Amino acid sequence: MAFFTDISKIEYEGPTSKNPLAFRHYNADEIVEGRSMRDQLRFSVCYWHTFRGTGADPFGAGTLQRPWDDGTESVENAINRVRVAFEFIEKLGAPFYCFHDRDVAPEGATLAESHKNLDAVADVLAEEQQRTGIDLLWGTANLFSHPRYLHGAATSCNADVFAYAASQVKKAMEVTHRLGGENYVFWGGREGYMNLYNTDMKRELDHLAAFMHMAVDHAKSIGFTGQFLFEPKPKEPTKHQYDFDAAACLNFLRQYDLLDHVKLNIETNHATLAGHTMAHELIYASIQGALGSIDANTGDLLLGWDTDQFPTDIYLTTQCMLAILDQGGLAPGGVNFDAKVRRESFEPIDLFHAHIGGMDAFAHGLKIAAAIRADGVLSDFVKNRYRSFDEGIGEKIEAGSVTFADLETYMLEAGEVSPNESGRQEMLENLVNMYL
Amino acid sequence: MAFFTDISKIEYEGPTSKNPLAFRHYNADEIVEGRSMRDQLRFSVCYWHTFRGTGADPFGAGTLQRPWDDGTESVENAINRVRVAFEFIEKLGAPFYCFHDRDVAPEGATLAESHKNLDAVADVLAEEQQRTGIDLLWGTANLFSHPRYLHGAATSCNADVFAYAASQVKKAMEVTHRLGGENYVFWGGREGYMNLYNTDMKRELDHLAAFMHMAVDHAKSIGFTGQFLFEPKPKEPTKHQYDFDAAACLNFLRQYDLLDHVKLNIETNHATLAGHTMAHELIYASIQGALGSIDANTGDLLLGWDTDQFPTDIYLTTQCMLAILDQGGLAPGGVNFDAKVRRESFEPIDLFHAHIGGMDAFAHGLKIAAAIRADGVLSDFVKNRYRSFDEGIGEKIEAGSVTFADLETYMLEAGEVSPNESGRQEMLENLVNMYL
Amino acid sequence: MAFFTDISKIEYEGPTSKNPLAFRHYNADEIVEGRSMRDQLRFSVCYWHTFRGTGADPFGAGTLQRPWDDGTESVENAINRVRVAFEFIEKLGAPFYCFHDRDVAPEGATLAESHKNLDAVADVLAEEQQRTGIDLLWGTANLFSHPRYLHGAATSCNADVFAYAASQVKKAMEVTHRLGGENYVFWGGREGYMNLYNTDMKRELDHLAAFMHMAVDHAKSIGFTGQFLFEPKPKEPTKHQYDFDAAACLNFLRQYDLLDHVKLNIETNHATLAGHTMAHELIYASIQGALGSIDANTGDLLLGWDTDQFPTDIYLTTQCMLAILDQGGLAPGGVNFDAKVRRESFEPIDLFHAHIGGMDAFAHGLKIAAAIRADGVLSDFVKNRYRSFDEGIGEKIEAGSVTFADLETYMLEAGEVSPNESGRQEMLENLVNMYL
Amino acid sequence: MAFFTDISKIEYEGPTSKNPLAFRHYNADEIVEGRSMRDQLRFSVCYWHTFRGTGADPFGAGTLQRPWDDGTESVENAINRVRVAFEFIEKLGAPFYCFHDRDVAPEGATLAESHKNLDAVADVLAEEQQRTGIDLLWGTANLFSHPRYLHGAATSCNADVFAYAASQVKKAMEVTHRLGGENYVFWGGREGYMNLYNTDMKRELDHLAAFMHMAVDHAKSIGFTGQFLFEPKPKEPTKHQYDFDAAACLNFLRQYDLLDHVKLNIETNHATLAGHTMAHELIYASIQGALGSIDANTGDLLLGWDTDQFPTDIYLTTQCMLAILDQGGLAPGGVNFDAKVRRESFEPIDLFHAHIGGMDAFAHGLKIAAAIRADGVLSDFVKNRYRSFDEGIGEKIEAGSVTFADLETYMLEAGEVSPNESGRQEMLENLVNMYL
Repeated sequence: MAFFTDISKIEYEGPTSKNPLAFRHYNADEIVEGRSMRDQLRFSVCYWHTFRGTGADPFGAGTLQRPWDDGTESVENAINRVRVAFEFIEKLGAPFYCFHDRDVAPEGATLAESHKNLDAVADVLAEEQQRTGIDLLWGTANLFSHPRYLHGAATSCNADVFAYAASQVKKAMEVTHRLGGENYVFWGGREGYMNLYNTDMKRELDHLAAFMHMAVDHAKSIGFTGQFLFEPKPKEPTKHQYDFDAAACLNFLRQYDLLDHVKLNIETNHATLAGHTMAHELIYASIQGALGSIDANTGDLLLGWDTDQFPTDIYLTTQCMLAILDQGGLAPGGVNFDAKVRRESFEPIDLFHAHIGGMDAFAHGLKIAAAIRADGVLSDFVKNRYRSFDEGIGEKIEAGSVTFADLETYMLEAGEVSPNESGRQEMLENLVNMYL
Repeated sequence: MAFFTDISKIEYEGPTSKNPLAFRHYNADEIVEGRSMRDQLRFSVCYWHTFRGTGADPFGAGTLQRPWDDGTESVENAINRVRVAFEFIEKLGAPFYCFHDRDVAPEGATLAESHKNLDAVADVLAEEQQRTGIDLLWGTANLFSHPRYLHGAATSCNADVFAYAASQVKKAMEVTHRLGGENYVFWGGREGYMNLYNTDMKRELDHLAAFMHMAVDHAKSIGFTGQFLFEPKPKEPTKHQYDFDAAACLNFLRQYDLLDHVKLNIETNHATLAGHTMAHELIYASIQGALGSIDANTGDLLLGWDTDQFPTDIYLTTQCMLAILDQGGLAPGGVNFDAKVRRESFEPIDLFHAHIGGMDAFAHGLKIAAAIRADGVLSDFVKNRYRSFDEGIGEKIEAGSVTFADLETYMLEAGEVSPNESGRQEMLENLVNMYL
Repeated sequence: MAFFTDISKIEYEGPTSKNPLAFRHYNADEIVEGRSMRDQLRFSVCYWHTFRGTGADPFGAGTLQRPWDDGTESVENAINRVRVAFEFIEKLGAPFYCFHDRDVAPEGATLAESHKNLDAVADVLAEEQQRTGIDLLWGTANLFSHPRYLHGAATSCNADVFAYAASQVKKAMEVTHRLGGENYVFWGGREGYMNLYNTDMKRELDHLAAFMHMAVDHAKSIGFTGQFLFEPKPKEPTKHQYDFDAAACLNFLRQYDLLDHVKLNIETNHATLAGHTMAHELIYASIQGALGSIDANTGDLLLGWDTDQFPTDIYLTTQCMLAILDQGGLAPGGVNFDAKVRRESFEPIDLFHAHIGGMDAFAHGLKIAAAIRADGVLSDFVKNRYRSFDEGIGEKIEAGSVTFADLETYMLEAGEVSPNESGRQEMLENLVNMYL
Repeated sequence: MAFFTDISKIEYEGPTSKNPLAFRHYNADEIVEGRSMRDQLRFSVCYWHTFRGTGADPFGAGTLQRPWDDGTESVENAINRVRVAFEFIEKLGAPFYCFHDRDVAPEGATLAESHKNLDAVADVLAEEQQRTGIDLLWGTANLFSHPRYLHGAATSCNADVFAYAASQVKKAMEVTHRLGGENYVFWGGREGYMNLYNTDMKRELDHLAAFMHMAVDHAKSIGFTGQFLFEPKPKEPTKHQYDFDAAACLNFLRQYDLLDHVKLNIETNHATLAGHTMAHELIYASIQGALGSIDANTGDLLLGWDTDQFPTDIYLTTQCMLAILDQGGLAPGGVNFDAKVRRESFEPIDLFHAHIGGMDAFAHGLKIAAAIRADGVLSDFVKNRYRSFDEGIGEKIEAGSVTFADLETYMLEAGEVSPNESGRQEMLENLVNMYL
């Protein structure tokens, strides 16, 4: 079975010698900052968009041509799809993939049947992982598509829905564990509210925390030692998601004593929908020891919904890689393309264009970030900028050895502060441009 | 001295019998839910916008006519302004006011001189408080207007600036204490960053926490027992403020062990700039025991900056008062009009229109909220909606007595969840309209 | 067949005497400003959301319970649905409805079959209109849901798609004409672009204009004298729709000489997504003689997509009705509820809650607007504000009898302008609150 | 007098050999697409931000160090500033500058005195233009900073303000003409409204049109043949500016028969605040023959106000230059840096960093755009995409030789449309990345 044409055989059809189906920057074995690009970037293909996306949007039906898919919800079709998926990922050269339970296997008529379906497909996933060497970056459970989850899952007002969600996550964790998954992700599809008039926010948040604690306990009971990840997103589908941004997630994890067990999976498009740059969210999480993994995509900042486009902006990828290299890498997390081809890019070949573009942009960003770090100009500038805290009154402030009264005494004597220095934003922006 | 015409003597100049300078809803002595409106609403006039606003904006000079102000930065003018301010607040009938140190008294050539100026004006503030019975809701320090704070105050890269800010807050706290202030507010004017390339976020946040801890310690040392309040704002003037929203503030307070000492002062326009409704921020803070006070204003949701308009929307005020009544009131916090008349509303009489409109809108909201609560329809609806957690499997979930394995067993037997119920958002929105 | 319980028999289930299923303000026969409410408001129920909505969203499957619908795409089911729709509209008491061709009748395997299906259902629509007296406010064609329209319809890069869309509009116009439709609407579902790299904007706009001219010509050829309406929307589903807002639509209509034939159908949620208030778009269109009809709904200004909620905000409905009364009414246009019940409001009764809420909010807005107009305070204020253009130099400016040189001579003599007057925004906002 | 160190003598102070004060891409004499970079880019320095900016923002005082400026509003200081400005522009190597009347010369106590001041400074501007060869790209009048303009200028409710504005524009046009200005710009600082309750939109728009017609007439009378430019901006300082975006401006110009006389001056930050990409606004204006000039800057898409940052994003500059080259250049317009250094970049040297960064980014964008055009891949792709309109039914559609009836006949026969082709957005985004 070979649904996808071999990459090496595809020639760009346009009037140029440039081949858009070749990597220009990504070379898995090339060493950057002491690790191969493969290990620095840990690219992952997401199963939902890439193999289950249809191109449907709120205004129209699916458009994507997926000739291998018979359109049924059968286990047989699901298994066939797994074969195609691994063929694609293998040709692409990505070392990881991710899934939701309901992406890979169909929902059954009962919970028991759904479990059984998942097990059946997991057998084939294991087989293909074995065959190709492609690993599972993370698994998760889809707790938002089925109508039973219309009021949320762990935050539903219906206790049965909580129980159902718990059963589904239990199973998804077990399958993730079986397949050697390195992380397990919580994304609160509908863990939020549509309207405050009908919502008991406190009770819902308490339930969400109880749910996560049960998950942590279950991991222990089955020996799953992968990293738990919580994924911020501000809105859509609900009006307000409880996991709004990194700050809201971390506040929740601290409040409910979950921070030792859970890190964050940060997504670009979710960051910008929350009003933050991706770089902000990455650094903010990282300095709190909570940056676990990223969902690499991009949004359109002039649009107010999750467009989940493939990332091709070199500034974005450079900033991501600066934050990641600054914390010494992402493992056991990775760079997962939670991105989808446009509805208008409906041919299978567009999947290659999209992933190659994203991988190459990240590889380019990695090289630029490494060069910036090697030169040290940026980090030296920052270090120098705060040097007043390395000595004198600043050192005492950091040491906690002065009070307001001491500082007032000091300043009454000094009269006015020592001269400030220019922030040099324009110079630094130009500096980064020098590395492109 | 009587700069303001007595309210009762002002007649609306238009062709109608309706008098826009009379309250229709606010009656300080009227009892609502067991307290006078005065005590439920605890209205406060803010000194900065109302007495120091000029009407300048980024595209033009000041326009506001303030005949009592001689335009100088002298202490004499500052004192004169205090007399006018109290005349205004007294006529308006608001029980509280708030200030920044530099609003009430001019910055001197040295820190010592600034301290002296503030003391001189504080004498008159004390005198006028005594004369009128108007109290100080809270004080704060302006750590953002002077050029020395261009890189922030507690988060400046310059240690001297930290020391200067500490000296200023120390003094502002002492004056607040002397004047019987019931709270002390931190609003991080420039505690954030303009650009990540030149910023050490971790070091800046560590400094901010050290600063707050010193403030808490200083309060103890002087016997100030008022409530500390931290005020969220997402952006403007900086690109990103560390106190982005309630979640970011609470995460910070938890991370640095400050939550026992500091609550939040929530502002409508800051909430909406962060992508949240005011009701969200209030409830979110309240259920964490952290709703301390509010800055009552409104923004224009189609504009991306802090317009600080007076609140006149009955839906907004009703939602605010529902959240406040639900937690049993705001004291020692209050409803502070952090709002400014439009640049085009340049006559002194517009200050009356603006404050009367805001007070009346909140009084109307209070009455509506009380009526909704008295009827109990909304709260009964919500209570009923979560009833599945009051018994059976839901009760066990809340009690923490079940595991994922238990829930799976339960659900494998049940097969599917019990039927969900409509969220009835439209009905509830109509219901609220019935109370207008 | 009676799927809906009679309104009068429904009792609100909550612990209050207030009945959310009764109108408090809407009384079809009550005279306001010389016309019955029925004629002032001309309410219309939209077929697509109310009878074809499923509750599906980008993250989940349909949820809405519609017991009368067998879920098939048969003509028989379509006809049955028509019966239910008219039962609902009749009970509700709305005088109009609207549809897209593909809402009422299923797409066939060929264009010919689609035409035939539409004719078959139109027979029943005609019958039900006759039976109930409910009229057709407007018809339109769905040129966005079918995959053939993925690159747009009149602006597709594929000429066949243009031809198909033309055939579909031709038929939809003919059916609209047959059913006595008073208007015909163009909403450019995908008339825009996803990306500029692959787009020839000029060619696409030329095609769109050619398409509309053909429509105008066809109307003449079949004797359809209803009003053409063009509906602005800024984005979604495409990244940029050519009909972005009223200004973009009117510029297009002027450029291509279509303004004599086409007015605008303005929608609240589309206005706000474009960065405008609904009042702005209404007045802007109205003063250019181009306000034809409205799509009455509301968005959530903190969300960046079309939420199409039912309008319940009295400020919004008052402002709409002020603009509409100011131009002497909307006929032959109307107030069409292009709004959908929330996905969580999945019971049929929620359709009543939603429409009753919207109708009552508009009836309330009508009464408030009429009262404001009767008193004349607002209009007198505005008239008085511009009085300097009613005499002297202002009158000459309006008459076009002065030049820059004349004005300079005048002003060199005057030296400075006569004093400006306060804009009194706060007073006017309070004034409007007095009428609630 | 030499306030600025010679560029060639400045060495970057950081630990790198890279010199941020050297151009890497801009070479005025290098030929690209048949013209020198100087003539392709026509760079202009704006007087207001670069020589009158103070660093003040709504939350703080000015910070920028401008040692040559004595801080007075004297004509002497103004003249001194002109000398420094030309020294700067000369060292930078930009061929043009722009100004508002009140930037270059102080407002006098009377209109006559203001005129006199402007004449006095214009003498020196003329002298410095002569000395350096630097030309005036455009002049304009500041009709928004003085309090007299609080309700607008041409759209003020006060006829005297209209007259004053007319006098000011008359003079500014005359000075622009005298200095050989190649364009004259209208930017409606406060031509909009704060609130609809007090606004007569129709009357205001009529006045604005009368104003522009008088300007056109005056140009004729004095023999000024420069291009008039109208600059779109959606909001700020007013809630809604009448010149919202290119569409609103063009609709206005068409409505009032001004399109033959006025083109647009498009600014990036204004485009994005209106919800459009800069590329959209450029192409949209260009295909209507109305792209006259650009204000080259960038905003922060996560912030809702005009940040006026220097443009350094290569994607942005490439897209600008593609649009400009596609229409054969910008002359008599140019690339004006309507951008300001950050408040924190307060040293004079930061002006060099900022302008060099912007010029180099545009030069880089020019080279990339020229390479893309030379290869023809992008344009060939687009041309090929619409090929169905070059023959058969598509050709007839474009020729206007078919009706709806003809198209229906054609399509009834065809049954369904010819297959659509992928839009290839991801491939094209990757393609552009190949040229970086």
